[in-house]
Amino acid sequence: MAASKEIEEGAAFTPKYDADGLITAVVTDATSGELLMVAHMNADALAKTIESGEAWYFSRSRQRLWKKGEESGNVQRVKELRVDCDQDALWLKVDQAGGAACHTGRRSCFYRAVKLGKGGAATLEFRDADKAFDPKSVYRDR
Amino acid sequence: MAASKEIEEGAAFTPKYDADGLITAVVTDATSGELLMVAHMNADALAKTIESGEAWYFSRSRQRLWKKGEESGNVQRVKELRVDCDQDALWLKVDQAGGAACHTGRRSCFYRAVKLGKGGAATLEFRDADKAFDPKSVYRDR
Repeated sequence: MAASKEIEEGAAFTPKYDADGLITAVVTDATSGELLMVAHMNADALAKTIESGEAWYFSRSRQRLWKKGEESGNVQRVKELRVDCDQDALWLKVDQAGGAACHTGRRSCFYRAVKLGKGGAATLEFRDADKAFDPKSVYRDR
Repeated sequence: MAASKEIEEGAAFTPKYDADGLITAVVTDATSGELLMVAHMNADALAKTIESGEAWYFSRSRQRLWKKGEESGNVQRVKELRVDCDQDALWLKVDQAGGAACHTGRRSCFYRAVKLGKGGAATLEFRDADKAFDPKSVYRDR
């Protein structure tokens, strides 16, 4: 097979990292299918995730490896890990401990919608934005 | 509010682009909730998407703006657009024309699963990999 064909139709897992050595990870709830968050992995985070069955990521802001839930306890047990056609994005279906993935205390990080069809400055509308926990009581530095 | 608090809890839409001027876009089926694809938008693609209600992206490989479905006809009508807590990822819930988002002809780009808990070279297993169309009959250059 040609290289691109092998990547798309082959059975070899050859994740394609970007210039910073990262790959995008989309995380959904394994039961409800709801989109919880988007994060990034480096090769080390991906290896730890595959080995342990729990989600590890690489924090771009803190420039370090982190295990999801290491501070909050809200770990993610990975039920299924998929890769996309060109192998530059991952999909994790997880059991979310604590019922909330977002550090703001919400179930999903995607709790605001952008108004469509408007010109000019777009505004956001809160949706499904109830908090499952109080971040102040969970994180030391917030 | 402090800057980070304003980004996370405010109603102003201030998308945060990366060093290449791109933001990650996660695309799910508005009806089934299924993850269809991950793509990227620049500011122009995002503006066109908001104005038209149809999904536009920026192709990193071709380095150009593209309207999803411009060649295949499989356009995406955006039912809802959300942004995440730190405003560096977007979520599009779409009605997918033609029933398939992936250029390989499949409904979703995520048609292969990585075996978990294994050391060494990981292999992929095809799942939900039936093709909805034959890419050879849809794209000129494949």
